[in-house]
Amino acid sequence: MNPLENIRIVLVDPKYAGNIGSICRVMMNMGITDLALVSPGEHLDWAEARKLAYKAEDLLDRIQRFQTLEEAVADCTVVAGTSARTGFYRDHAYLPREIAPVVLDSAAHHKAALVFGREDKGLFNEEIAVCTHIINIPSSELYRSLNLSHAVMICCYELFLLANDASYKPPEEGSPEADGAMRERLYEAWSAMMLETGFCEIEKLEHMMLGLRRILSRGKLTENDTKILLGLAKQSRWCAAQLQKKKK
Amino acid sequence: MNPLENIRIVLVDPKYAGNIGSICRVMMNMGITDLALVSPGEHLDWAEARKLAYKAEDLLDRIQRFQTLEEAVADCTVVAGTSARTGFYRDHAYLPREIAPVVLDSAAHHKAALVFGREDKGLFNEEIAVCTHIINIPSSELYRSLNLSHAVMICCYELFLLANDASYKPPEEGSPEADGAMRERLYEAWSAMMLETGFCEIEKLEHMMLGLRRILSRGKLTENDTKILLGLAKQSRWCAAQLQKKKK
Repeated sequence: MNPLENIRIVLVDPKYAGNIGSICRVMMNMGITDLALVSPGEHLDWAEARKLAYKAEDLLDRIQRFQTLEEAVADCTVVAGTSARTGFYRDHAYLPREIAPVVLDSAAHHKAALVFGREDKGLFNEEIAVCTHIINIPSSELYRSLNLSHAVMICCYELFLLANDASYKPPEEGSPEADGAMRERLYEAWSAMMLETGFCEIEKLEHMMLGLRRILSRGKLTENDTKILLGLAKQSRWCAAQLQKKKK
Repeated sequence: MNPLENIRIVLVDPKYAGNIGSICRVMMNMGITDLALVSPGEHLDWAEARKLAYKAEDLLDRIQRFQTLEEAVADCTVVAGTSARTGFYRDHAYLPREIAPVVLDSAAHHKAALVFGREDKGLFNEEIAVCTHIINIPSSELYRSLNLSHAVMICCYELFLLANDASYKPPEEGSPEADGAMRERLYEAWSAMMLETGFCEIEKLEHMMLGLRRILSRGKLTENDTKILLGLAKQSRWCAAQLQKKKK
């Protein structure tokens, strides 16, 4: 199948309906048709969205809505979130041209997502945590911040070019990759392990988990990898529980 | 100097002020600050433009206005016009990634222009004729036509990436290149030569000149080249005039 059909654009809490409409057009221009919104505002001007989705209204009508980013990407393997900021586990960022083969290779066999944050505040740390990769769109020091639809355009343009590059060959399917839902189960188990074994205090947990998510996202995480890591957490938690009993 | 500062974005007869505003932001994002309009409509909603130029209002205030495309690019060497159509001397089109080094090499020492047509009808043939190069932005068969500001973004993004690529080195200045004004003098002289020598009828002239403009734009046209071609036209016209006298 065409890998572009496996790519979902996810907009988290967009504030301007015009941007949503423009993004529908941008996506169709670049052969990408799966658009999802996470907790969009209640007072969006959908007439404005329809005006700007000019000739791409079909995408607007097929938008999927989710309460949380976790739900929106539960079936996705690669989840690449855009961030203008760096630091605090936002390092190891990819350029749009660098992320394109990562996303496309995965989209040959799985759902993959590109995630874009609010127009004013971008993605929050707990949303960045859900992403397997971070994208940093290059821009001038004159004016760093791109309009949302233009940020989407640049990412989709790079994917479209690569997908239509005759020399690009998607990889054969290897071990199945873990999807968003499986990854979240893993991180829950590891959070519990870190607390129960006394590895860290609850106040440090969020910070520690952000780091761990970035470490485990540097390569592909297969279902088998995830099962091993889940098993390890289960065993450590069992030890911790036994120890607690002995202490009593 | 930074070659991006030598690049002018030219919008021919834009219909929606919102697009002009969005383009101001897009340009500043990509480090390009010279915007020109050719015969913009009289009823443009400049308040809308200002709204969308958010934090790039400075560019909006410095827009240059021209009556014709020839005037807007009179001081430019490379003039690259975007066209969604092909055929009728719109072949030999460049992709945005291919045109970037052509524009940037020229912008190291001269003014260069990227030209974008009307939202609905693009550039007319007589405007394409003024361009030295044609750009074709790749897009999906699902929906070929890009919003104007997104088309500008893709072209500016490729220029910005190349200008900031550490491995890119602008060329040393060679022979001075002919600018738009000099090229137009050449084409006028050649049009006269074609008619006066009886090479073609007036009905065929426009078609013939479009072909000739494309042929002469395939490489750099220096001032010296242009002087030779102007001299040739002058001499042929002299011969034709002498012949007319003899006939009387």
